[in-house]
Amino acid sequence: MQTQTAGNRLLDADRPDTVRLMPEEATALGQQALERVGYSGEDARIIVDQLVDNSLCGYRFAGLPRILAIAGDEKTRRDRTPVRIVRETPVSALLDGGNNVGYIAAYRAAEVAIRKARTSGMASVGAYNSYYSGRNAYFVEKIVRAGLVAFHASSAYPRVLPPGAARPMLGTNPICFGFPSDDGPVIFDMGTASFMWGEVMLHAHLKKPLPEGVGFDEHGQPSRDAAEVLKGGVAPFGGHKGYGLSFAIQALGILAGAGLAKGQVRDYGFLFWAVDPDVMLPGGEFKRQMSEYVRQIKETPRQPGVDEIRIPSERAMRERERRRREGIVVDRKVVDSLRVL
Amino acid sequence: MQTQTAGNRLLDADRPDTVRLMPEEATALGQQALERVGYSGEDARIIVDQLVDNSLCGYRFAGLPRILAIAGDEKTRRDRTPVRIVRETPVSALLDGGNNVGYIAAYRAAEVAIRKARTSGMASVGAYNSYYSGRNAYFVEKIVRAGLVAFHASSAYPRVLPPGAARPMLGTNPICFGFPSDDGPVIFDMGTASFMWGEVMLHAHLKKPLPEGVGFDEHGQPSRDAAEVLKGGVAPFGGHKGYGLSFAIQALGILAGAGLAKGQVRDYGFLFWAVDPDVMLPGGEFKRQMSEYVRQIKETPRQPGVDEIRIPSERAMRERERRRREGIVVDRKVVDSLRVL
Repeated sequence: MQTQTAGNRLLDADRPDTVRLMPEEATALGQQALERVGYSGEDARIIVDQLVDNSLCGYRFAGLPRILAIAGDEKTRRDRTPVRIVRETPVSALLDGGNNVGYIAAYRAAEVAIRKARTSGMASVGAYNSYYSGRNAYFVEKIVRAGLVAFHASSAYPRVLPPGAARPMLGTNPICFGFPSDDGPVIFDMGTASFMWGEVMLHAHLKKPLPEGVGFDEHGQPSRDAAEVLKGGVAPFGGHKGYGLSFAIQALGILAGAGLAKGQVRDYGFLFWAVDPDVMLPGGEFKRQMSEYVRQIKETPRQPGVDEIRIPSERAMRERERRRREGIVVDRKVVDSLRVL
Repeated sequence: MQTQTAGNRLLDADRPDTVRLMPEEATALGQQALERVGYSGEDARIIVDQLVDNSLCGYRFAGLPRILAIAGDEKTRRDRTPVRIVRETPVSALLDGGNNVGYIAAYRAAEVAIRKARTSGMASVGAYNSYYSGRNAYFVEKIVRAGLVAFHASSAYPRVLPPGAARPMLGTNPICFGFPSDDGPVIFDMGTASFMWGEVMLHAHLKKPLPEGVGFDEHGQPSRDAAEVLKGGVAPFGGHKGYGLSFAIQALGILAGAGLAKGQVRDYGFLFWAVDPDVMLPGGEFKRQMSEYVRQIKETPRQPGVDEIRIPSERAMRERERRRREGIVVDRKVVDSLRVL
């Protein structure tokens, strides 16, 4: 994701096929559309709050357009029941997502993780029987803003091929760490696929070839044709290291109950680990040291021509501040579709 | 690390500059050498048990030769005090490593993590005021053999440059996940540097150039001269993703107390998170599903010419079984040096 420049901003505003919405307008538009899809006011609000935050942070395709994808997903048309805790101890909980979309199930799991970690010092919370949860950093930031260190991994439907395999066996499996500091949350969020699945879909839609070495068709043959790759899968990022990480995240999904809903171990599982840093370093020491650490990294001597050493999540949070004032940009077609949903 | 072939084995055996030792011989040799360096019998045993296991698993330079490195390290000559818990709750502990080498401090932290996670269901344990701890997978396997899911990260002395930086600010920061299964432990362990620091040292020793794009000299200029790179540092693996991961691990090191010993946030910190999988999935369900998951990955249809889909740690554990029978191979010079240490 590139930093927005002044030029980009003008382009955003000037393009006739886009609409600029203030956060409250985007929230109201999304909320109404989701309620028409059948979500309660509370659930619609949980979903739209993430989508608007994603847009504010500059992840445009993770914003309001996702409502159209949710509405079109056959899982959304299946029965759902409220997310509920099926098993718990003072340090853990397992949640049945009740076939609710992950935006809701992972949100509820994050809430439980906060509550338990605040009481017990640490918590492990999993949610299963759910699907697509959006941006992991959103949930992690929520936990971090409660003063906790957070780890979040989510396993998913197989899209990624282990090295040497001819069929996808792993999800795109993101992993995310979040830390409170005296200067606010610091969050690192990454997918373990070599190419984002949403980007494969976008390339297929635009009939744009994929980069070399990323995709495989349904027979496991290397392919740059995104439409063929949608029937196959993609390589993990970073070779064997990315494979190993993705493998581990799938196993953490099992710990979150991924295998319980459909009896197969390779389904969606959302796992949260939250730790109160005061049980390790009392008196706010962790937050202080975290700020000091960020300051030291920012002040590292730089290579010639480099303006700044970046901290994970710094760009997204700056972008959010700016867009809270300036609004977010949504395709006019998306806005029109949401209005008639 | 390549799989050993029959050819390698013969080579191992035939080379006149190597000695083949059975595990018990290697243990006795290492134990005596470490006691002469000043370690108690118990501490020497903790260290040598890992070193011999590393050799058995095929990590030859992580084996007995490390005793020479420990003996030569100026930290080993400084005063040390027994590792002790300085703060604890039912789910957490912080250990002052007492300037003991990480082989001992991280071992003690792993023991405490096992004890607490078995009692409370989950635990976060950190150790600081220590240094080099060897192979993370060794500690994680110990925790996994106690029936727990384990996460371990360790931060270290700066050797890795953030993208755009001219000076190292991050350790080589390994991250490790371990899972029990009905068929034994499954462990994934990786460093987040683009090149292992030990390999840079080896290249410098052999006056062998480093690959392009890996190293930087003390002024932050790209360099392939390993001796120059020892005064500078290396890039993270996998670009911004590897940087972000390394950044997060350094922050987890802070949570483990890395900043406490010397007042600087970029020191060694060993963090363990352990979870009893039965609090999430009761009745051994996790171990069963983990075995099923491994079986499914192993049975994935393969690319032409591929014999096998590998599972993390599978090669090392097979190698260990073989070498338990056949012995490990140590340079004769190393054996001679250990005898006169």
